[in-house]
Amino acid sequence: MDITVYLKEKKGLVDAFLHSYFSSPITQKRLQDSMVYSLSAGGKRIRPVLCLAAYEACGGEAEEVLPWAAALEFIHTYSLIHDDLPAMDNDDLRRGKPTNHKVFGEGMAILAGDGLLTEAFALLSGFSVRSPRITDRAVLRVIHEIAQAAGLQGMVGGQAQDLLSEDAEPDAETLSYIHIHKTAALIAASVRVGGILASCAEEHLLGLTGYGSPIGLAFQVVDDILDVEGETEVLGKPRGSDEKKKKMTYPKLYGLEKSKEKARELVDRAIGSLEIFDEKAEPLRAIARYLLERKS
Amino acid sequence: MDITVYLKEKKGLVDAFLHSYFSSPITQKRLQDSMVYSLSAGGKRIRPVLCLAAYEACGGEAEEVLPWAAALEFIHTYSLIHDDLPAMDNDDLRRGKPTNHKVFGEGMAILAGDGLLTEAFALLSGFSVRSPRITDRAVLRVIHEIAQAAGLQGMVGGQAQDLLSEDAEPDAETLSYIHIHKTAALIAASVRVGGILASCAEEHLLGLTGYGSPIGLAFQVVDDILDVEGETEVLGKPRGSDEKKKKMTYPKLYGLEKSKEKARELVDRAIGSLEIFDEKAEPLRAIARYLLERKS
Repeated sequence: MDITVYLKEKKGLVDAFLHSYFSSPITQKRLQDSMVYSLSAGGKRIRPVLCLAAYEACGGEAEEVLPWAAALEFIHTYSLIHDDLPAMDNDDLRRGKPTNHKVFGEGMAILAGDGLLTEAFALLSGFSVRSPRITDRAVLRVIHEIAQAAGLQGMVGGQAQDLLSEDAEPDAETLSYIHIHKTAALIAASVRVGGILASCAEEHLLGLTGYGSPIGLAFQVVDDILDVEGETEVLGKPRGSDEKKKKMTYPKLYGLEKSKEKARELVDRAIGSLEIFDEKAEPLRAIARYLLERKS
Repeated sequence: MDITVYLKEKKGLVDAFLHSYFSSPITQKRLQDSMVYSLSAGGKRIRPVLCLAAYEACGGEAEEVLPWAAALEFIHTYSLIHDDLPAMDNDDLRRGKPTNHKVFGEGMAILAGDGLLTEAFALLSGFSVRSPRITDRAVLRVIHEIAQAAGLQGMVGGQAQDLLSEDAEPDAETLSYIHIHKTAALIAASVRVGGILASCAEEHLLGLTGYGSPIGLAFQVVDDILDVEGETEVLGKPRGSDEKKKKMTYPKLYGLEKSKEKARELVDRAIGSLEIFDEKAEPLRAIARYLLERKS
């Protein structure tokens, strides 16, 4: 299969959903503009696409789970807005555009992040027309799973550790903690969410977990590598910004070659975990391979 | 009934739940410390107590809905942490103590807020032992309701308007928008959540809505009045801070006497909406009267 065609098609579905979601103006227009600005600033929509692909691997139709997939992008986008703030990473550019607080001011950027995070849960718990296959219990489980992956035991915890580790000597344990919590947790949850919404068998969910966790980590390792080797124009941010910010990264701790090897290992392990799945999991396998080759 | 005894007892239940919730240390201790610092900084726990009282009014036992009540306090506390940030209200004191960012730094304060907001939804969707009376559907509805009341169509929207209205000439429409969205929406939702969890009849839920919305607004009007008339030691912040920050307030727009009259009217309307309820709603009625007399 041509994975770039698949990715483009599914990204199109997600983008269309996001666009229509914010098509009617709300009462606080400036806040909405700020949220939409960051949501529309591009991005691969990898979390939603993984959710859709996992749901398809379990025999469902991607269109049935778009609200839940889109909610994952809300959460990812909020985390980027807050990460970029002066009190955090203090970034001026994101995906080649000025960061949210550069355009809307710091206060509004904080609120745009808060709004996206909150709206994600409104979307996750919403009662729009729902396939009978998706039960209330499955939706509750999904909300719980996402909240845990995004919260203090997950993404926010990883971000806190990242913040506290600036200027610290790199060490393997801290680096692993940051990457697993800050990035891998929500990516792994995105995959599992697709399986839970499909009410897939427990052994299939185990397979999806065995796929999602290494993929999540591989994603961050490749990000670290791209920050050393990538092209600034393709990345949308200056190459070497991790180094400049004294971030702990895989290449810094292990070197480039070992980091690439690690990413390959993780991807192999992820694909190996999908053995129980038939050809409907082909997109998941192809996404794993694609992650190794991506340039941005 | 002596409402101060009731408030103290219910606050005790909520505080005990919050305390036990964070009793086991998580992996990111500094983040947890920052969250617990603001959660433990006092406060009347008015949102959780209203939720418990509404659940009791519908015939339930308060202990059954503590996780949902506590989640409301998580959300309220996150909103205070973010409101106090330099990019927002830039407050150094809250309830007589240094604000979160003064103690933990701006970056950690942003993350503590993010963590509390996210953890609220983990708590709301959790699967701890649950009374059979509380259905999955009711829990989903509660999550949706809270997310909407706290998000861009509610609290975050009100906060954004507040931010944009600094230094603006006070006008009735904007003031009403800010107060209804920033404060009243989550308080009204807190009351409704108690009814929804009890799966109360639609007419009872209507009664609770008719109570919660004016109570939410009255709460903010009294806050505005206390900022003019209250004692700094009792308030835990300097009197006159709204004036100093050029906030739009009821006293500024309508004068003190008219504002007091407005608060009384709202409380009367709230109590009137509870006609359909029997003596089990007595605490709700007493809370409404108490709000008028509070000193902090």
